Amino acid sequence: MKKDRSGNYFEDFRIGMKISHATPRTLTEGDRSLYIGLTGSRTALCTAETNARQLGFEHRPLEDLLVFNTAFGKTVPDISLNAVANLGYAEVRFVSHVYPGDTLAVETEVIGLKENSNRKSGVVYVRSTARNQHGREVLSWVRWVMVHKRDHGAACGEAVVPSTQAVVPAERLRRSDYTARVREITGMTGYSDLWEDYGVGERIDHPGAMTINDSDHSLATRLYQNTARAHFDGHAMTANGGQRLVYGGHIISVCRALAYDGLENGLSILAINGGSHVNPTYAGDTIACATQVLEKVDLGREHVGALHLRMIGVKNASGASIAFPEPGEDRPVHPSNVVLAEVIAGDARRARNEFGFLRMWSIYPAQIQPIVNAMRPDFTEVEDAAGILVAAQDADWGPIQYKGELHDRATYRYFWEVLQKAKVTGMTVPDEADRRFLAN
Amino acid sequence: MKKDRSGNYFEDFRIGMKISHATPRTLTEGDRSLYIGLTGSRTALCTAETNARQLGFEHRPLEDLLVFNTAFGKTVPDISLNAVANLGYAEVRFVSHVYPGDTLAVETEVIGLKENSNRKSGVVYVRSTARNQHGREVLSWVRWVMVHKRDHGAACGEAVVPSTQAVVPAERLRRSDYTARVREITGMTGYSDLWEDYGVGERIDHPGAMTINDSDHSLATRLYQNTARAHFDGHAMTANGGQRLVYGGHIISVCRALAYDGLENGLSILAINGGSHVNPTYAGDTIACATQVLEKVDLGREHVGALHLRMIGVKNASGASIAFPEPGEDRPVHPSNVVLAEVIAGDARRARNEFGFLRMWSIYPAQIQPIVNAMRPDFTEVEDAAGILVAAQDADWGPIQYKGELHDRATYRYFWEVLQKAKVTGMTVPDEADRRFLAN
Amino acid sequence: MKKDRSGNYFEDFRIGMKISHATPRTLTEGDRSLYIGLTGSRTALCTAETNARQLGFEHRPLEDLLVFNTAFGKTVPDISLNAVANLGYAEVRFVSHVYPGDTLAVETEVIGLKENSNRKSGVVYVRSTARNQHGREVLSWVRWVMVHKRDHGAACGEAVVPSTQAVVPAERLRRSDYTARVREITGMTGYSDLWEDYGVGERIDHPGAMTINDSDHSLATRLYQNTARAHFDGHAMTANGGQRLVYGGHIISVCRALAYDGLENGLSILAINGGSHVNPTYAGDTIACATQVLEKVDLGREHVGALHLRMIGVKNASGASIAFPEPGEDRPVHPSNVVLAEVIAGDARRARNEFGFLRMWSIYPAQIQPIVNAMRPDFTEVEDAAGILVAAQDADWGPIQYKGELHDRATYRYFWEVLQKAKVTGMTVPDEADRRFLAN
Repeated sequence: MKKDRSGNYFEDFRIGMKISHATPRTLTEGDRSLYIGLTGSRTALCTAETNARQLGFEHRPLEDLLVFNTAFGKTVPDISLNAVANLGYAEVRFVSHVYPGDTLAVETEVIGLKENSNRKSGVVYVRSTARNQHGREVLSWVRWVMVHKRDHGAACGEAVVPSTQAVVPAERLRRSDYTARVREITGMTGYSDLWEDYGVGERIDHPGAMTINDSDHSLATRLYQNTARAHFDGHAMTANGGQRLVYGGHIISVCRALAYDGLENGLSILAINGGSHVNPTYAGDTIACATQVLEKVDLGREHVGALHLRMIGVKNASGASIAFPEPGEDRPVHPSNVVLAEVIAGDARRARNEFGFLRMWSIYPAQIQPIVNAMRPDFTEVEDAAGILVAAQDADWGPIQYKGELHDRATYRYFWEVLQKAKVTGMTVPDEADRRFLAN
Repeated sequence: MKKDRSGNYFEDFRIGMKISHATPRTLTEGDRSLYIGLTGSRTALCTAETNARQLGFEHRPLEDLLVFNTAFGKTVPDISLNAVANLGYAEVRFVSHVYPGDTLAVETEVIGLKENSNRKSGVVYVRSTARNQHGREVLSWVRWVMVHKRDHGAACGEAVVPSTQAVVPAERLRRSDYTARVREITGMTGYSDLWEDYGVGERIDHPGAMTINDSDHSLATRLYQNTARAHFDGHAMTANGGQRLVYGGHIISVCRALAYDGLENGLSILAINGGSHVNPTYAGDTIACATQVLEKVDLGREHVGALHLRMIGVKNASGASIAFPEPGEDRPVHPSNVVLAEVIAGDARRARNEFGFLRMWSIYPAQIQPIVNAMRPDFTEVEDAAGILVAAQDADWGPIQYKGELHDRATYRYFWEVLQKAKVTGMTVPDEADRRFLAN
Repeated sequence: MKKDRSGNYFEDFRIGMKISHATPRTLTEGDRSLYIGLTGSRTALCTAETNARQLGFEHRPLEDLLVFNTAFGKTVPDISLNAVANLGYAEVRFVSHVYPGDTLAVETEVIGLKENSNRKSGVVYVRSTARNQHGREVLSWVRWVMVHKRDHGAACGEAVVPSTQAVVPAERLRRSDYTARVREITGMTGYSDLWEDYGVGERIDHPGAMTINDSDHSLATRLYQNTARAHFDGHAMTANGGQRLVYGGHIISVCRALAYDGLENGLSILAINGGSHVNPTYAGDTIACATQVLEKVDLGREHVGALHLRMIGVKNASGASIAFPEPGEDRPVHPSNVVLAEVIAGDARRARNEFGFLRMWSIYPAQIQPIVNAMRPDFTEVEDAAGILVAAQDADWGPIQYKGELHDRATYRYFWEVLQKAKVTGMTVPDEADRRFLAN
């Protein structure tokens, strides 16, 4: 009769397995108030009922990242309770607005499994979908996470690595909901900058900064009913020589709120492509951020357009200190204290949407040692990583085959981390890869 | 014209006195959101409106302990502002669900008074009842608290010590509200463990743990409009060599939320019998807990049954380190850092209720010195305690008469503490009691 | 295309300029719950829907200072982002109650501008008005703030200093909304003290005290969408040798909540005349307060009257340690750790309103150095301050002309600070002023 609540391990997942996460969650004005209190969110569409009606909505929708974080939190107990590390996200699509009183139900399908060659863990790829009480899809995303095996000797099937889109294409972005009335947003915010006023390559320095308090991130993460222990169990974290980590989704919410200044006429986040948390945030750290316009996306609508943005956040440094990667520079480039994210913000007049991209592969330095311990004996994987990345670069980072397995940008990011960890732990990296990727 | 707001002292209470506490309080979805943010509560019935309807409710009720803490907070300014220590609770009965928009009005009747023999303080026994805006009882409890006298020389009447039930009997437990539809809860939680799947003596280790932050407990306690100074006045606490105490009701709420894992199909708390806070919690402490099934209670309903549970929480230790008392071991047994509580959780299929028991007599170590100071000159009380407990044990812990006063489990707990304090402060304890109760 | 979000500087303001602040804000029950959690507010009118109806209201209104802080927060990005210091408030009038679901839109008119003689900054005087979704005025106030110039060489127009009322006159105080049913409040609070039970000169010591946590004030200030960096950017504050300041409006809210004990039958704040934050509050400080009745104001209504109160808060000291200024003592008198505020609280039977006065001129010690730096080269201003204050005292603190400029109590407070800063920084103050105002 023992109630085992130790969560799923790598060998518990099967391709095609579907999980309905416990339990559906009704979001209310109370959740919005707490979200505003936790982040300082000030978007025009969500701040006042009168604003929403004036902009052509029946009611003011809930904040996009409140919805994302709530839906994501639901998946934690089933997917990532035994995670080594959260490796990445892709194709986060905000399909419908969510309103107070709506109930989100979240379902996840396992779409990929790849045991690590050390046989101690593996990567689980899932596609999660949140639907409202009418069964309508409101949000979906792909995520991959490295999960411990319970039994290192357990046999696992052949690797299946799904392909994901590096950028959600324009035709998959939401464009309904936005009538000509959205142009009245400029009268609300007092700023006239619209879609045509943003230029590709333009940099926006957001003036604010936000110190994260202990209770801030704990309240946020509990509000999302996210049970990941790294955020809550200070005793265990301290015993292991660390401290409680701030949930990355809270940092994204804070950055989004800070980014209001300069993106005032943005209406909604349409998508998040990817990003990474390259350093952990702890209570007491101060977050600042800056945004770069990567692309302007025509949604084929008269009054709204989309901006493809990259947002970089830093801790305990000024937003002005942020260096954006050069255009065309494809591999992850960021100093040690940078939180990278690509977010597409939008605006009004001809084009007033906002969408965002975060492709997270989330390796906290504090997480490296267990990962390294899990992998170090397996020199093979470092060799594979080197081989795959060299081949990938030769293919201009398009999809490749390597030892009979398909690889694309999703897995490149993973192997990139493998190389970095190999370097960090003093392992020998094959020459070609070392020269190409690890030389300063 | 001086406005004296120094609160009630022992001699201000009279048997039969009724106090309507200021003021009624309307609870809303906003209070629920904050409660979720503060505790991470995830019960199926309260998390989604769709869940509640599917389970046969018209709306989703508010979380049980949000209701309890709110009602309890109302009584603090009148009952325990001048408390030496919170000695105990009994017969906490959750009679009706409370819904957002409901208003709680709380009334207390003084049902017992017993001056301490040192004449510096006394024990006040009260029965408090919370009713909704329709006058319907939603919650009631008995509590006893040691309160200072304003004037040590004041004459007080004869002692009246009410008897309380050690365990709320099955026939007094709520059983309405639960139709056959409650069986659908297993589809929401993803766990199939129902009433018949729990066995007497079974132990459930809850995997989570929660570090308590300064703002967490302050926000919670203010939300309940609880004005007890020990939780808020850091300046005074520090001046007295201590620090702010976390409100015990917040710890119970956190433990209840952690206990979701393993008790997923529990529907409601039906009762709390008793328990104790044997050590104070301070900001920064991490709470973990485990639960033991003491008894399975048949409610005479086809679809729901009750579980009588004991929950023990610890701080800064793993839940696995918790040692439950042996069956039949009646006297309070807990290591120094254990928070003991008995909670009955339930589940679905034949029997899906949940109720709980907490008989708190709440002696924080930091509170012992003032208590000891108040009592030490009075060796008589130690002698009485010894005499009462020896007689009680001989009567197999049933009710006894001692020097013309009736005593039962409610007062045994108090005298148990008297003996412990006598030992802690180096007083001589009568041999028989010392041998029976204080020898290791 | 650079998006400049550096905020308004002194030379950007023009007399008569009107600013509609971004963006309107809908307040809900969720905001109220968080407000109660942040402050412990317990006013009868706002705590229960049943209370409000019994007192003759259709619904329970939102807490007065939740409304004030929200409306005030809206003005920060446009008015005080580049502030040297927040100098003062006057004529804060609570004109209509605000209910959950109401939307506040805030507009500000620039009514005065006075460049400092050092030409590095200037004082901006504004009148702000908050209206609900029906366009009805709910709150208005005058504020003056010292703002940096972007370009020290920029030419500014002639000084215009508006006159303000030291005390909002009785005829401008709200008196509607209060029917004979308000007398039922005594049954809710359990206290019988009404308007006629308060005497001029009476002192009320509020028994509570509240330690301010990091997250408490951050959550509050973000809830109000107030973006002032001093409250959020711990990194910058630390880099400058300081630490994050607690938003003064949160301290006022906490004091108001503590003042419940002794002013239980107060219904509403009608006005705030002024006050000052004479010392900064940091996380970890404990706030206590006391109130003095300055005046009883007959509103010409049978069931309600107003009390003109002065509230003084202290940090890390007992409320009993507070020394109120002697009657008729007009100049600001407060020990170094006193937060001064005048609040008028009221009650029921013949007269049951409450209104308050805060005339803040808000110089935090940590803000003195930048102010001094901005002014020290300009000895002229110290001479002016001395001359103005000597003349003002001779005129019994009535309005005066000095070098062709009109001055009244509003500016006297400012020049008082100039003299204090001159003394603090070791500058020579003209003899007469030194003798009158700075000698101990």
